[in-house]
Amino acid sequence: MSKFRLKVHFTLCLFLILPLLADAQSNQKDEDAFYIRSIFDHALTSSNAYDWLYDLCKGIGARLSGSPQAAAAVNYTRQIMDTLQLDSVWLQPCEVPHWERGKQEIVRVVNSSQIGSLPLKGVALGNSIGTPAGGITAEVVEVKTLDEVDALGEAGVAGKIVFFNRPLDPTHINTFRAYGGAVDQRGSGASRAARYGAVGVLVRSMTTSLDDVPHTGSLRYDPDYPAIPAIAITTKDANLLSQLLENESVRVYMYSDSRMLSNKISYNVIGEIKGSEFPDEIIVVGGHLDSWDLGEGAHDDGTGCVQSMAVLQTLRQLGYQPKRTIRCVLFMNEENGLVGGRTYWQASDDKNEYHMAAIESDRGGFTPRGFTAEGRDDVFKKKFKKATRWLPLLEPYGLTLSPGGSGADISGLKSQGGLLFGLYPDSQRYFDYHHTDADRFETVNKREMELGAGAMTALVYLLDKYGLD
Amino acid sequence: MSKFRLKVHFTLCLFLILPLLADAQSNQKDEDAFYIRSIFDHALTSSNAYDWLYDLCKGIGARLSGSPQAAAAVNYTRQIMDTLQLDSVWLQPCEVPHWERGKQEIVRVVNSSQIGSLPLKGVALGNSIGTPAGGITAEVVEVKTLDEVDALGEAGVAGKIVFFNRPLDPTHINTFRAYGGAVDQRGSGASRAARYGAVGVLVRSMTTSLDDVPHTGSLRYDPDYPAIPAIAITTKDANLLSQLLENESVRVYMYSDSRMLSNKISYNVIGEIKGSEFPDEIIVVGGHLDSWDLGEGAHDDGTGCVQSMAVLQTLRQLGYQPKRTIRCVLFMNEENGLVGGRTYWQASDDKNEYHMAAIESDRGGFTPRGFTAEGRDDVFKKKFKKATRWLPLLEPYGLTLSPGGSGADISGLKSQGGLLFGLYPDSQRYFDYHHTDADRFETVNKREMELGAGAMTALVYLLDKYGLD
Repeated sequence: MSKFRLKVHFTLCLFLILPLLADAQSNQKDEDAFYIRSIFDHALTSSNAYDWLYDLCKGIGARLSGSPQAAAAVNYTRQIMDTLQLDSVWLQPCEVPHWERGKQEIVRVVNSSQIGSLPLKGVALGNSIGTPAGGITAEVVEVKTLDEVDALGEAGVAGKIVFFNRPLDPTHINTFRAYGGAVDQRGSGASRAARYGAVGVLVRSMTTSLDDVPHTGSLRYDPDYPAIPAIAITTKDANLLSQLLENESVRVYMYSDSRMLSNKISYNVIGEIKGSEFPDEIIVVGGHLDSWDLGEGAHDDGTGCVQSMAVLQTLRQLGYQPKRTIRCVLFMNEENGLVGGRTYWQASDDKNEYHMAAIESDRGGFTPRGFTAEGRDDVFKKKFKKATRWLPLLEPYGLTLSPGGSGADISGLKSQGGLLFGLYPDSQRYFDYHHTDADRFETVNKREMELGAGAMTALVYLLDKYGLD
Repeated sequence: MSKFRLKVHFTLCLFLILPLLADAQSNQKDEDAFYIRSIFDHALTSSNAYDWLYDLCKGIGARLSGSPQAAAAVNYTRQIMDTLQLDSVWLQPCEVPHWERGKQEIVRVVNSSQIGSLPLKGVALGNSIGTPAGGITAEVVEVKTLDEVDALGEAGVAGKIVFFNRPLDPTHINTFRAYGGAVDQRGSGASRAARYGAVGVLVRSMTTSLDDVPHTGSLRYDPDYPAIPAIAITTKDANLLSQLLENESVRVYMYSDSRMLSNKISYNVIGEIKGSEFPDEIIVVGGHLDSWDLGEGAHDDGTGCVQSMAVLQTLRQLGYQPKRTIRCVLFMNEENGLVGGRTYWQASDDKNEYHMAAIESDRGGFTPRGFTAEGRDDVFKKKFKKATRWLPLLEPYGLTLSPGGSGADISGLKSQGGLLFGLYPDSQRYFDYHHTDADRFETVNKREMELGAGAMTALVYLLDKYGLD
């Protein structure tokens, strides 16, 4: 056959095939839209996620690492996964820190000429040591930044209680940005103050609200300096204390009997459906099972856990047969150590596993606005671009994709070269509840949480069906 | 000068001017982005909207048309507008219906062999007549649609209580669609049943939740048929009643002393800043000042009112000098008559006014996702296209523009040929509160409501600065 005739044949073939290809593509798109619609229908009408959340919050309650409640949550979620007809369910042991708040915190202004003695509402920061049995009484020095502590130095700080009082910037539309811009005070304030001889630390609660609710959260002691006790006070009381300090020197009494106990064995709870074609390509969905010891750990992160289990439930009940291995991981100890996450990554690296994707839900159970995604520098751009091709399928559900962080528990999987996603819900109310007694079941709207589960399931479906290469 | 040289000159000029034009355009865009950023900064840090909402909800409370509270709300918001340094503030009289719930509603299953006598939680529908003093006892017949009533006819309906029990479809992502697909039962169910001799009506509450909260809302009696009393029962009780009916005939006792009183004079509350260049082009922002008599009218529509006032406050406090006339209208009687809206349109048409745009906020004070827009057929496409050019300025705040309804109170302005917008907030929680005792100040998140006010102010700024022609 001459080159010319070959070319004519080829061209003719193209003319015949192209419409078929276009049809196939459009059928594919319709099929995906239809499947994703059925995923959301299931999430909104047939999922058990809200009942599971009720059990976690009301049946078990707050689930701090090392607590009996954390152990109960491991058992409960394992039992739930056992009912989901997965291919395997197992516990992955890890040794977690065991911190206890103790019986009581007291913060009290003791000498104000303006208002006399005045109690302030406070809660010890997680991982903090307690005070001596008789408490601490000292003069308060207010700062807005860690650098200000350096500037004050020993002369300004030694023997005093340092009061970190930089508010979250309310002009950020995404409240996580506001949180990120203030949380160094909570995480590092105690050691920075201790470096110059401070005896204790008060920290303004990490919230966008002005209210009476104190927010706990972890601090990290720098081993080079003495550990000193740290208590978070409410934003209203922080404003009040700051006002008092404008006019006179203020002495505060602080007491806490919180303490770190010895480590305990706990577990990540894991369930998976084995992939039929590429079982070695793993897609993880997860949240963290531990919570702070206040409230019920509803938004942080009960919702992430039940949403992740709901992904597997929905796929199973729709009869979906994944090509890749889909794994639900409920991580232990995100709040004060990240031991569950670290254990999972290390074991995974040791087994030479490849996580082609991981999705964490740990920003509350609010209406989903999409996902943020990150990945190793050498692969991110290409894989993210591929994912953005699915946007037309996600937009009917109000979902977008944008570069950004994923989740603490999955962050260590980045080295495996997959794409890491964080569910990105509406952020306005999160810091009303975060790490407080107010983080309770009643604050989670059933539909909002279910839509998040639907969003995660839809993304898993697309990841599984099309991969990222 | 030859044509050729002219052309060269022109081309040279273009080369010189184009970069300047591009620069000017890009400066313009930067300036707009900067101004909109300062609008949101003000809305999130310096607006009084949340305090006003507190006063409306806690100081005044529910504000049904014709009630003393509605009159108090007129006075209060007029006083607030008087503090905003507007060019004029006035009241526009209108004659509103005055319905009263009365002292008590009773709904009780009286004969169930399964559970004996059983109280159901209910509230009379707005505009409903009461029962005779001794109440009504009759057999219940359940239907899902108005058409089913026609099919049953007199033989199936006469002398009975018709129970409308079609739930909101939970698979709609936008809950207003679900509401729109069910609300005919509430609005028209009573007259449809009365056509065939029914003596009363029970209606399943219009909510996406399964809970113990009954939802009121208006019905319209068809003057061709007798008015019969109508009561909404909770979704949980509706399910229970439906279950009972599966197994046996059920008789229900219903009692209500609600009634329509004589009309009263009330007012729309209006304030405006006169435009400096095009004072005859009016941009309205508004919500409705009346509410149902349950709860505090927080999301429906206290938030719309305070957001609308906040638009003017923010523009004034930023020192913005509008080219066009910007008017805030708090409409009376949206809930059970729309008299305030009708009065406003008619007066406006009589004066040959031109509303180049109107924005209503009446979908709750939740995180804004954008605006829906509508307009007269002959102008909509072109004007909407112009508005979509502003999308890049709105997207950083999570806002979109899409075709759709605007708001009942402004709908009659469409004939003037402007563009009508409805603020479109996240809709997931709205029908948890809508028309119930649960619609209270505490359920409004300050930041979410403020972001809505910021969105409205930003859109007003762009409409005023660029127009729609």
